[in-house]
Amino acid sequence: MSDDPIMIGVDFGGTSVKIAAVFQSHIIDHAPPIATQDFETHGELIDEMVRAIEDLRARHPKIAAIGVGMPGFVNFETGLVYNLTNVRDWQEIPLKAILQKKINLPVAVDNDANCMAFAEWKCGAGRGYQHVVFITMGTGVGGAIIANGQMIRGARHGAGEIGQTSIDYRGRRGAYGNLGALEDYIGNGEITAKARDAYHEAGIQKSLQECTPAALATAAYAEDAVALALWDDVGRMLASAVMNCCWLLNPEAIVIGGGVARAGEILFNPLQKHLFPQLSGPFKDHLVILPAVFGHEAGTVGAAALAREMI
Amino acid sequence: MSDDPIMIGVDFGGTSVKIAAVFQSHIIDHAPPIATQDFETHGELIDEMVRAIEDLRARHPKIAAIGVGMPGFVNFETGLVYNLTNVRDWQEIPLKAILQKKINLPVAVDNDANCMAFAEWKCGAGRGYQHVVFITMGTGVGGAIIANGQMIRGARHGAGEIGQTSIDYRGRRGAYGNLGALEDYIGNGEITAKARDAYHEAGIQKSLQECTPAALATAAYAEDAVALALWDDVGRMLASAVMNCCWLLNPEAIVIGGGVARAGEILFNPLQKHLFPQLSGPFKDHLVILPAVFGHEAGTVGAAALAREMI
Repeated sequence: MSDDPIMIGVDFGGTSVKIAAVFQSHIIDHAPPIATQDFETHGELIDEMVRAIEDLRARHPKIAAIGVGMPGFVNFETGLVYNLTNVRDWQEIPLKAILQKKINLPVAVDNDANCMAFAEWKCGAGRGYQHVVFITMGTGVGGAIIANGQMIRGARHGAGEIGQTSIDYRGRRGAYGNLGALEDYIGNGEITAKARDAYHEAGIQKSLQECTPAALATAAYAEDAVALALWDDVGRMLASAVMNCCWLLNPEAIVIGGGVARAGEILFNPLQKHLFPQLSGPFKDHLVILPAVFGHEAGTVGAAALAREMI
Repeated sequence: MSDDPIMIGVDFGGTSVKIAAVFQSHIIDHAPPIATQDFETHGELIDEMVRAIEDLRARHPKIAAIGVGMPGFVNFETGLVYNLTNVRDWQEIPLKAILQKKINLPVAVDNDANCMAFAEWKCGAGRGYQHVVFITMGTGVGGAIIANGQMIRGARHGAGEIGQTSIDYRGRRGAYGNLGALEDYIGNGEITAKARDAYHEAGIQKSLQECTPAALATAAYAEDAVALALWDDVGRMLASAVMNCCWLLNPEAIVIGGGVARAGEILFNPLQKHLFPQLSGPFKDHLVILPAVFGHEAGTVGAAALAREMI
């Protein structure tokens, strides 16, 4: 469908704001990334985003709408960004209204995990499924839920926070007061710290830089016993939270993306090994566990997919 | 609306099958209960159910449809009952097709927790909400999920099994191989056994009959320290599973029913005490925890409400 419109996808990260022109699920052009922390006020940063979007629009007049993925809680209906913990001057910002007024195009604003899920659901690994749980594993652990062929946002647009669900009711208290939050067990930093300790116990001294998930994946593929045991443990803890999603939502597919998930089968194999024996027939017989298709571009492609839904 | 049709609600339990004629949410007539275990084959039991339904129909010619709640996994679309673990000769029974043929009225078949949820959602504590988690606490712990104003059944009609979700990824293995299943911590029998042990440790000898949830509720209201501590613990464990539902689904309301929930505020107070500090603003600010409105009649009223949806 060559007369499909072109969408702008904005992936607003704590480090940089990436802005791309997206046709179907392909990035056809992009603006230079904007350094998020260079701006004192939300107004200056938004003005810079508007300039970048207008530049893209000048080159692609068929741009029909703008989708924005934000790293924090968003009211999807009003497009209000409640609070960004890592960016200055971003409390209660009506981003959708501001952008629509400045650019005069339809704008959708959602949280970044929902955008990732949209990319995978509409054009990626989750395509064609009606019941899907998406998980993104990185510094934090996020997620999103599709049920009955719809995104489930919940009463206050907060749904899908699998990283905040508990895998141990007696676990330690996390960022939101929750005990035993999955994110506190398998977030990027936690994996790294746990690996360094495990190597230390095995009499091997490693720096934190040598214990990143990427380094641990390489080590595991080279049959490093410490790394293999660590990924097995990550798979076991992830399996518990995924199992809870399965008993609650009975999905057809679990789609997992994010930096940590790039470890590949060294993560997916233990996950499946621990997950399937904890589910009965109707919950596991047709269940598939799939790696996300989109990598770094999931944010922009997803935000563009969200914009496409809206028009 | 006095020209509302009358529905038949069937609550198929392991002990008895209750059949009622329901107008709106009121039972206006009922058949004598059928003793489930008196029948050798599913065919004989179904024939007895048909006789009871036809008797009711003779007295209420305006009966328009039949809803049936079953204590096991059901394919809601086809009305196939997969398996009842506690009733002889109930494997792969196409109950909907059989009843429709014999009675010549529309029939809906669902699991009993979904029927309970339907009763509460359509006419009870959950009325008017678009995002609700229902929990029923008895011998087992069951549940159902409403999101986006729809019942979420999942890919194979199994969704809502909160009792099988884990509150401890290193917990002991439950009925379906799942580790740390909520039901294994706060099911009726588990509460009773735990209470007897707690009394024993306190130097008080009690029989299991003296430690039922009903007896423990009475004791707690009389300031019995052992009983109070036990209900606090039940509330803490339930809070962990409910919290997971909140982070995943961001509901407006949690509705809790079943025999154990009749303990009332002695259960609901600890639940709230442990739950709310584990949720952030958008997840707790408008959240209400409600006791179910319907008691023993939730099964028949719910099955009737389900039938009403269908016609």
